[in-house]
Amino acid sequence: MTVAATLAEIAREAGVSAPTVSKVLNGRADVAPATRERIEELLRRHGYQRRRGNQSTQLLELVFHELESSWAMEVIRGVENVVREEGLTVVLSESSGRLSLGQSWMEGVLARRPTGVVLVLSGLDRTQQTQLTSRNIPFVVMDPAGDPGEDVPAVGATNWHGGLAATRHLLELGHRRIAVIAGPSKMMCSRARVDGYRAALETAGIVFDPGLVREGDFHHEAGYTAGLELLRMRDRPTAVFTGNDLQALGLYEAAREQGLRIPEELSVVGFDDLPLARWVGPPLTTVRQPLTEMAEVAARMVIDLARGNRPSTLRVDLATSLVVRSSTAPPQTAG
Amino acid sequence: MTVAATLAEIAREAGVSAPTVSKVLNGRADVAPATRERIEELLRRHGYQRRRGNQSTQLLELVFHELESSWAMEVIRGVENVVREEGLTVVLSESSGRLSLGQSWMEGVLARRPTGVVLVLSGLDRTQQTQLTSRNIPFVVMDPAGDPGEDVPAVGATNWHGGLAATRHLLELGHRRIAVIAGPSKMMCSRARVDGYRAALETAGIVFDPGLVREGDFHHEAGYTAGLELLRMRDRPTAVFTGNDLQALGLYEAAREQGLRIPEELSVVGFDDLPLARWVGPPLTTVRQPLTEMAEVAARMVIDLARGNRPSTLRVDLATSLVVRSSTAPPQTAG
Repeated sequence: MTVAATLAEIAREAGVSAPTVSKVLNGRADVAPATRERIEELLRRHGYQRRRGNQSTQLLELVFHELESSWAMEVIRGVENVVREEGLTVVLSESSGRLSLGQSWMEGVLARRPTGVVLVLSGLDRTQQTQLTSRNIPFVVMDPAGDPGEDVPAVGATNWHGGLAATRHLLELGHRRIAVIAGPSKMMCSRARVDGYRAALETAGIVFDPGLVREGDFHHEAGYTAGLELLRMRDRPTAVFTGNDLQALGLYEAAREQGLRIPEELSVVGFDDLPLARWVGPPLTTVRQPLTEMAEVAARMVIDLARGNRPSTLRVDLATSLVVRSSTAPPQTAG
Repeated sequence: MTVAATLAEIAREAGVSAPTVSKVLNGRADVAPATRERIEELLRRHGYQRRRGNQSTQLLELVFHELESSWAMEVIRGVENVVREEGLTVVLSESSGRLSLGQSWMEGVLARRPTGVVLVLSGLDRTQQTQLTSRNIPFVVMDPAGDPGEDVPAVGATNWHGGLAATRHLLELGHRRIAVIAGPSKMMCSRARVDGYRAALETAGIVFDPGLVREGDFHHEAGYTAGLELLRMRDRPTAVFTGNDLQALGLYEAAREQGLRIPEELSVVGFDDLPLARWVGPPLTTVRQPLTEMAEVAARMVIDLARGNRPSTLRVDLATSLVVRSSTAPPQTAG
């Protein structure tokens, strides 16, 4: 069946004219919501997929959950590296802290007809996925916060291995009371890091102690607050794996307040290896997550999909690696 | 004279058809370079200005000199705050370290027909200014690196006052040998900060010593290298104003290497007040440059211009303010 026939058939079934179906396809606002919904449903049911080649712009959409910290900057730089080579231009959006995107965003995307969409920590619901698929706009999720689904192309990092490596490093230095300040438990990347921490403890024969686990939100403030709690414990931990670098800096501040020297009296391991990890005092031992490379892979993947190539795998996890600097040392012996 | 008449006249004078002039106006690539140049020259000479209202997209272009550091993030956040309210979308470009933008970028902008352009530290030459003006695409320069020209709308900060306040703070603590690690002398914002430093010294009756001035490039590494030079001097300075926060962190590293404690043996004042200034150890005394607010003002200004409003002034400088934290203290008495 030709694409034109499908479009005409959808119009007939929906009881509207073909131009009305086109309007919906192009994200135009001048269609009644009920009509729009009926047409979207038919597009989905028919598995309608627009031909490529009528993309009017050379845009790549980059969407953030939130534009916070230099974390986002690393990602933007990676995407820019790829689009510059490919002669594309980046359109930047932020879902303002919501984990899903609103309909007005989707209308904008459909109207702009981008080459593709890279989503950072922002999920799409099933309806939105279908809306993009029916317009032949490919999308890739970077570092998924939730479960993007088996059929969604995604780029991540080996978070579990990173948590394992961070904790094994502390164990090898001789630490036994190792705390963790996790990220939000609703983010899969955060869960994986904590599970790696737990696996390292258990394979070293140390019983996992839930009392040494705090949940943060990946921001500096959470590292500070959770850090103070941990450092004020009677039997305080001698080392903390902080889930990310910003929380490590919060812990640094809590340690300064408590008069504890790093690494002599407290060892700290972060996650991400943002530029600032090298610059703080003492320079931070951390798990490097190759954010720029991950963004490059995501951008290339979406451009490949736009060209009609099927990727060999829908899920790519880039390797993390431990970077040992000066915030970790053997624990002080008691007394 | 109506706009249509002007367009027809330009086509006649250029010896081409009206559609060819339209192609050039819309940034289409399929016009011979010589023809394009002739048409651009005529557009300029006639002071041709396209009517508004045929902008097909709701895009605001944001162009960076380089996407480095959390500095850029503060700016992106400010622009996002405004475009979200206005229902616009941000298109992000980077001039890859060049201070001027290439023709391919300009062709993209003309084809996209954005509501306006905000340039961060990236200048436009006269030809490019005319190209935008003739298409009725307004632009605003944020924190100009060079002299954008009297007739170019620009948003900056009171850099001179910031340099003055930073240095006066050190003088009031009792410092007399105060060094400066400047930014690139080709950037006006950097020159203004050093001039403020110099004015503070001279009004305090201290002779300006060129031996205490180093030129950096606003990156961490330059702060480290210039910092080592200064700290190895026989009669080393007791305080340094570092031009920006990243250079302050480079100096922190140099001081650690030389075994000098901050602030006891060395006082440091930065410039910008990036989020990380609060997080480093010791927290950095710095001059706050309201980057997010500056970006908001620039974005609002360009949207205002797009609506045909003339701003009351073409040049807005937002106030800087000294934020005293823990990296400054009175100098140690000799011996």
